[in-house]
Amino acid sequence: MVATQFACARPRLAARSAAQQHARRGLTVQCVAAPEQVTTKVQRNKNMGKLQAGYLFPEIARRRKAHQEANPDAKIISLGIGDTTEPIPPFIVDAMKAASEGLGTLEGYSGYGAEQGKPELREAICKRLYEKVGRKPNEIFVSDGSKCDIGRLQLMFGADVTVALQDPAYPVYVDSSVIMGMTGGHNGTGFDNIEYMVCRPENDFFPDLSKAPRTDIIFFCSPNNPTGAAATREQLTQLVEFARRNGSIIVYDAAYALYISDPNCPKTIYEIPGAEEVAIETCSFSKYAGFTGVRLGWTVVPEQLRYADGFQVINDFNRIMTTVFNGASNVAQAGGLACLQDAGWEQMLELVAFYKENAAILRKTFQDMGFTVYGGENAPYVWVGFPGQKSWDVFAEILEKCDIVTTPGSGFGPAGEGFVRASAFGHRGNIMEAVERFKKVYGKQ
Amino acid sequence: MVATQFACARPRLAARSAAQQHARRGLTVQCVAAPEQVTTKVQRNKNMGKLQAGYLFPEIARRRKAHQEANPDAKIISLGIGDTTEPIPPFIVDAMKAASEGLGTLEGYSGYGAEQGKPELREAICKRLYEKVGRKPNEIFVSDGSKCDIGRLQLMFGADVTVALQDPAYPVYVDSSVIMGMTGGHNGTGFDNIEYMVCRPENDFFPDLSKAPRTDIIFFCSPNNPTGAAATREQLTQLVEFARRNGSIIVYDAAYALYISDPNCPKTIYEIPGAEEVAIETCSFSKYAGFTGVRLGWTVVPEQLRYADGFQVINDFNRIMTTVFNGASNVAQAGGLACLQDAGWEQMLELVAFYKENAAILRKTFQDMGFTVYGGENAPYVWVGFPGQKSWDVFAEILEKCDIVTTPGSGFGPAGEGFVRASAFGHRGNIMEAVERFKKVYGKQ
Repeated sequence: MVATQFACARPRLAARSAAQQHARRGLTVQCVAAPEQVTTKVQRNKNMGKLQAGYLFPEIARRRKAHQEANPDAKIISLGIGDTTEPIPPFIVDAMKAASEGLGTLEGYSGYGAEQGKPELREAICKRLYEKVGRKPNEIFVSDGSKCDIGRLQLMFGADVTVALQDPAYPVYVDSSVIMGMTGGHNGTGFDNIEYMVCRPENDFFPDLSKAPRTDIIFFCSPNNPTGAAATREQLTQLVEFARRNGSIIVYDAAYALYISDPNCPKTIYEIPGAEEVAIETCSFSKYAGFTGVRLGWTVVPEQLRYADGFQVINDFNRIMTTVFNGASNVAQAGGLACLQDAGWEQMLELVAFYKENAAILRKTFQDMGFTVYGGENAPYVWVGFPGQKSWDVFAEILEKCDIVTTPGSGFGPAGEGFVRASAFGHRGNIMEAVERFKKVYGKQ
Repeated sequence: MVATQFACARPRLAARSAAQQHARRGLTVQCVAAPEQVTTKVQRNKNMGKLQAGYLFPEIARRRKAHQEANPDAKIISLGIGDTTEPIPPFIVDAMKAASEGLGTLEGYSGYGAEQGKPELREAICKRLYEKVGRKPNEIFVSDGSKCDIGRLQLMFGADVTVALQDPAYPVYVDSSVIMGMTGGHNGTGFDNIEYMVCRPENDFFPDLSKAPRTDIIFFCSPNNPTGAAATREQLTQLVEFARRNGSIIVYDAAYALYISDPNCPKTIYEIPGAEEVAIETCSFSKYAGFTGVRLGWTVVPEQLRYADGFQVINDFNRIMTTVFNGASNVAQAGGLACLQDAGWEQMLELVAFYKENAAILRKTFQDMGFTVYGGENAPYVWVGFPGQKSWDVFAEILEKCDIVTTPGSGFGPAGEGFVRASAFGHRGNIMEAVERFKKVYGKQ
């Protein structure tokens, strides 16, 4: 008889399975003792412990769910997370279908692609968006999205850099900085050792750079999420000059650039002379082609961008992309390529125009009701002021009274307090229904 | 006249574009001076500087390209990077096509999915592979692949943990540890402050745990890449007991588990009782369904796994996945779901069986020629010994004489010296052609 060391009591299923295996092999299983419960001796990463509650959007999803459960009949409309709702245009869908079909054939099959993206896609992105501002295909790294690229950029920079960001801002900049260890703990308002550059109506949503200290990294998003403010050429020139003077690196998030109408607002940071020596740009197909679930984006790292020791940043980013990433999905890349061909590009711009109409409708609604409203002209986000009120209270009130999910401004940073963000991503019918509900509740003020 | 600060000389294209914009707006552009060349003052991440040369596979690709350029007529066969070559089975392709098509319709469109993966996919993975060993759907995080998950796990653990890994091993474990800052510099053989657990024929490719020091994290891959060795139930029981005794966390890479034939080699670490308190498992559809380019994998973090302070690791991993990741591509997830349905599962296992036949052919070829060969029975990799020779020399010789790309064993760690890895991923015709070429050059020894 062979006595084994496998326990039978806990964990029950695993033990039973192991015991069965042995039984099948003709061994007799003897229950010796349940393994004692073990807690590892691994210390939790102290940076993870600094994070506050959940990431903003899961928290909103949680509250939405609770509201739905408490009000089973409520037809909740989401103007919350900026999630696309309209079908992907046919030219782009056809390319994805064809790519999927091809993977089932000997001729069309491909395995690992270049981690940096298909060469033809890098070229197409460059040609359509960056050639005229001097960028080259090898500087464009295709990815599964800007959010993920921001994480990889943080990993590349390491914990020893100092960081500034707009306040309010897309929460990933600050949360990934916390995770990577660039910040101190939370002080009740924000995190220590991070520079919050306040962007409020008073300063035209552009930081007062004359008072801003130098940091290594500056996260800057234009058109801005959440305020919808698009920086002008003059503002971005100031920003680039500030970075050049300080030897900083700007991480420029241009995920909404195609929503810009104002000809004085650049669609890429590289329209500003000298930006290529101080700026990385990240962008995405998510809000252009409805690729939020398909997952495709890119990051531009110019060859001219160098660390203090002269080392080219592009080489380190390439190493990151080849070591902890393995390329965006080939089907998504086929879709991205279609987005950049003339037919796909036109259909994509129509989609952007549709969401922009939504934004205009929402903007006008709030304006007509007497609210102070920002954004919504060069961005799919409308930023509505509720002076003197707490954002989360307004969020809760709108959810309660209108069955509408928005995003509380303070979720994007301390300077977002007193605002809520309304996203223009939605079916037209839902947007119109939301407008009616808003008017009913807030129309009299 | 308005003199602007935009330079006209360098960078030429950007400046011209800015100037044109101004001209259109009726401003006169005056060229003041070219901006001086700027190098940022950002210090390069010292961890990035510790990395050696390129990541292994891009380096091999470089050498292959050089060989092709020097020998334009050579018909190179790759048994190098483990890259799948056969079409994705029809049931799975159909699901991906349908998902793509659906994205073009109002009913079928979806935007952001849960960052952790579609609930039905998490359930299907659990049901097919983990239910019998006590795991639950909420413990399964769907991703764009194991390589990427390893990077995210490292980010979660942070720089302050100690790390052990098999030697030789998949290079991502060590490189991501270096990037994250867990290691010292390279000492000529390996990195300081990392525990290389030697796995050689002498110890049946299983580390001598009686001599291994405690570390926080233990990377363990079975069936192993590159040696092809699959750990037995007894060995894995030893490993789990070692981790439980030391309070370590095992990161168990099971990317090749379906290649296991030997009933005494577990297909998941959770077959070992008590593993759920000390082990994370990562796996992938890449080598099962030919998804190397489609990008889909998963990581299992049991609820029972806790840090020293009792905090559940699953909560931190969830935070990482929701903060610097945004879900795997919805088309890839539709494919993954099809893999787990009966029809897809059968077709997938046929594909695995095909590559296993390739492995058996390669294994026999080298054996017949008198080489000492390991692996190839429970894994798609054959590990061929060239005693007394340098792996990179053997790699170069095989490339030169046979026009065949292999992978030098030393690229996987110091203990891989004297071996090359032959991958069984290839069309049957190419495998047979490779066999003929090998026989011609090495058949006489």
